[in-house]
Amino acid sequence: MFLMNTWYVACTSADLGHKPLGRTICNQSMVFFRNAEQQAVAVEDFCPHRGAPLSLGRVQDGKLVCGYHGLEMGCKGKTVHMPGQRVQGFPSISAYAVIERYGFVWVWPGDAALADPSLMPVFDFFDNPQWAYAGGLYHVKADYRLMIDNLMDLTHETYVHASSIGQPEIDDTPCATHKEGNAVVTSRYMHNIQAPPFWRMAMKANGLDPEAAVDRWQICRFTPPSHVMIDVGVALAGMGGFDAPTHAKASSVVVDFITPETETSHWYHWGMARQFKPKDTGLTAQIREGQGQIFGEDMQMLEMQQANLLRHPTRKLLMLKIDAGGVQSRRVIDQLLAAEQQGRETAPA
Amino acid sequence: MFLMNTWYVACTSADLGHKPLGRTICNQSMVFFRNAEQQAVAVEDFCPHRGAPLSLGRVQDGKLVCGYHGLEMGCKGKTVHMPGQRVQGFPSISAYAVIERYGFVWVWPGDAALADPSLMPVFDFFDNPQWAYAGGLYHVKADYRLMIDNLMDLTHETYVHASSIGQPEIDDTPCATHKEGNAVVTSRYMHNIQAPPFWRMAMKANGLDPEAAVDRWQICRFTPPSHVMIDVGVALAGMGGFDAPTHAKASSVVVDFITPETETSHWYHWGMARQFKPKDTGLTAQIREGQGQIFGEDMQMLEMQQANLLRHPTRKLLMLKIDAGGVQSRRVIDQLLAAEQQGRETAPA
Amino acid sequence: MFLMNTWYVACTSADLGHKPLGRTICNQSMVFFRNAEQQAVAVEDFCPHRGAPLSLGRVQDGKLVCGYHGLEMGCKGKTVHMPGQRVQGFPSISAYAVIERYGFVWVWPGDAALADPSLMPVFDFFDNPQWAYAGGLYHVKADYRLMIDNLMDLTHETYVHASSIGQPEIDDTPCATHKEGNAVVTSRYMHNIQAPPFWRMAMKANGLDPEAAVDRWQICRFTPPSHVMIDVGVALAGMGGFDAPTHAKASSVVVDFITPETETSHWYHWGMARQFKPKDTGLTAQIREGQGQIFGEDMQMLEMQQANLLRHPTRKLLMLKIDAGGVQSRRVIDQLLAAEQQGRETAPA
Repeated sequence: MFLMNTWYVACTSADLGHKPLGRTICNQSMVFFRNAEQQAVAVEDFCPHRGAPLSLGRVQDGKLVCGYHGLEMGCKGKTVHMPGQRVQGFPSISAYAVIERYGFVWVWPGDAALADPSLMPVFDFFDNPQWAYAGGLYHVKADYRLMIDNLMDLTHETYVHASSIGQPEIDDTPCATHKEGNAVVTSRYMHNIQAPPFWRMAMKANGLDPEAAVDRWQICRFTPPSHVMIDVGVALAGMGGFDAPTHAKASSVVVDFITPETETSHWYHWGMARQFKPKDTGLTAQIREGQGQIFGEDMQMLEMQQANLLRHPTRKLLMLKIDAGGVQSRRVIDQLLAAEQQGRETAPA
Repeated sequence: MFLMNTWYVACTSADLGHKPLGRTICNQSMVFFRNAEQQAVAVEDFCPHRGAPLSLGRVQDGKLVCGYHGLEMGCKGKTVHMPGQRVQGFPSISAYAVIERYGFVWVWPGDAALADPSLMPVFDFFDNPQWAYAGGLYHVKADYRLMIDNLMDLTHETYVHASSIGQPEIDDTPCATHKEGNAVVTSRYMHNIQAPPFWRMAMKANGLDPEAAVDRWQICRFTPPSHVMIDVGVALAGMGGFDAPTHAKASSVVVDFITPETETSHWYHWGMARQFKPKDTGLTAQIREGQGQIFGEDMQMLEMQQANLLRHPTRKLLMLKIDAGGVQSRRVIDQLLAAEQQGRETAPA
Repeated sequence: MFLMNTWYVACTSADLGHKPLGRTICNQSMVFFRNAEQQAVAVEDFCPHRGAPLSLGRVQDGKLVCGYHGLEMGCKGKTVHMPGQRVQGFPSISAYAVIERYGFVWVWPGDAALADPSLMPVFDFFDNPQWAYAGGLYHVKADYRLMIDNLMDLTHETYVHASSIGQPEIDDTPCATHKEGNAVVTSRYMHNIQAPPFWRMAMKANGLDPEAAVDRWQICRFTPPSHVMIDVGVALAGMGGFDAPTHAKASSVVVDFITPETETSHWYHWGMARQFKPKDTGLTAQIREGQGQIFGEDMQMLEMQQANLLRHPTRKLLMLKIDAGGVQSRRVIDQLLAAEQQGRETAPA
């Protein structure tokens, strides 16, 4: 069961070119394409004629042409033309509400009539010349909530990412978790430590001495349905940490858009937005490659954790203080799911 | 559920050499081999000794020798010898009725006692020096009836085979479907058009100007259980089309033997029989390769259509006029299935 | 259902180095590692914190450190440390009794409190300078009892291993099966025959004329839960066969440790212990490679036999005299299983 009446990232804007793109989101098999105005749209990936996947077809003049017998599907799920046929009576397929923003295509897998653009999350680092952004996509065979757990408890960095961003001080420093409405925030502040390899690189790139003592912060922020933004960075020790002046720190936002595919798999769009040297495209590419490698290290762990949990479905897991971020995020999801369920039950027929 | 008391193509004669061949047909796991007289025979692919697949064994003096412990299986499903054993009391395994004809091995998966050679379909283009034939085999992960649908509605050529045999005039020209007993015939005649690439090649090979205007025909003929023969060709415009004299046309028969493997997979023996330049073996090979590529284009579509239908098992598909050939073919199959079922129920015990 | 309160081979000593090793045995997902004293130990492969597989972690000072968040698991299934946590209340995971002997790590998958080292089988050819040993491991997708059947009926050598150890005289010579307590022994003695290729090689290596007539023996000995030791060899004809003096024979013990993984898969540790030229490491390597090839030939047969049996779950198999070894071995397993089951039911709570 997934939150359906909410916005998920479906793909990047660049993923959606001239060809249709098939993708399953929240167990819904969807096909994304661009209409005549080049707007991203989505309908069910199911031709009403004979059930062929429309994503095997092509886009012509903003209509999706089935690759089997040429049925032309409009962006509202109504067949608009088929050679030699009267199509008025053809059954509709579902259309999904779509918004393109921040370089991503977002989809509302639930009732399109309820789709509310004002519920789109707001990010000031996208489309902003003060910031650079780059990221990538992983397909992970694990419940999307295991990825939320992963990102809301960064003590795993010490073990999973020992050679890049992990360091023992993470373990040694307690974290604190609190809620802000439906957002869950877990933060950890480390003082007067040596920066780990990734941050030394960032300090050097930002003109700082990589050997200098730093204050380091990790502020993980979950917002429903499954976005996790993490403020991370280091500042020269004693300069104010997160609030230090720009010239004394290297900082960025780890961007995680987690989209359920099935109950045991998800699409994971990851990236990093940074404020330092935003025009240095070589640095952007270097960070993207490094982050891709680091985040790839989590995949095997999550997929084997998922397999283990399926093998032991009744076993209870521990909920330690370090797990509070994940635990509270799941609680928010459960509350919203219950509300969505109740809304369906009490809705006028 | 499949029609069982009928003839299906199991493999080509060339497939069945000195080694046994294991193949599942209509959910029956069978092993084919040649007896001492080099006749093709078939029994269950299950050694009565310990359940080893007999197809892993070898053929010796017309007996199938199990590759595990040397049990010798005769062509009627009776064990004929086993080293150091008295085999008279060994349980029999099923034997299947087999006929070899037209370069193919045909099997009757149902009751061998009912196997009727007179029900074998008759084709005048096999074993006929006026004709050349070549073909191949695809294993397709889709219900065999999706392949019948595919072949009985050739409007898909415009989309799936756009660069070879597809052309918009197929869509623009209505087809007509009628029944002839249990056969279903869907035909389409296009007049005064340009030939598509495949037929230009064929015209050139037959000494015709490939740029000349032509009349083109497609006459799909389904016969139970699942054979589809398609008369296809082009004749110089106004020369009589299908009935034009040989020197003014290029024509052939697309041969499709569709054999269920499981409910969601089938063996697809495809080929082409042609009357022009039958001795030109280079042309035969060229056509075979081209047809193999074209027919390979259907595979992904059918397999993903199958996956989509499994995902939406209750959804109704459209039955348009272009689908009439497939729809009526399935109706013939259903009627024969019901009759076969009733025959089983009313048969003396 | 498997015999649980008994010793199985889990892996070789060499397999268990500095890294943990995950392996499923009798449907139990286990992780093996070496404690601070370098003793092999095993616990469940399930971190009590969040269910991560502990086998993805590392071993530090004899403790297993989870690769996700650094929980340190002791060798008794108790968490001994986790950064920033009080671990006393953490739930335990199962620990398994382990013994390292003969170059193998042995595990008792059942109740560790019942683990009895005196029940370990005794082999005089391991750790003995008079003998050489080498072997390998196959993972086989078949019920482990199919491997017992295979090894207790060596008539299959004539068919599966025709070019190495098979010969028609095996089929022509009856075998005899008897029980010795819970052991099952099937033996076959062939007199005055030519040795097959593998044994010619062994004769040559042992300074015997490979063309000389020999007496050959095969004495298969099953002991529960699933060990099969096979005395095999050839002696110059008339010199006493199995009891011939060392200089007149070439003999060895085929060692088979068969460990269930799931109901339809097992780990197969195979090897050969020989008394001739034990210091000739080149010969040891040559025999190991040859045996690996020969035993690999059984794998496809067993896996396809398993698939066939799953397809025909109700069909009865034959139990011939040649099958007596396997049949009686299975009967011993069934009796011990019933006793183990009854023991559980009558045990004090």
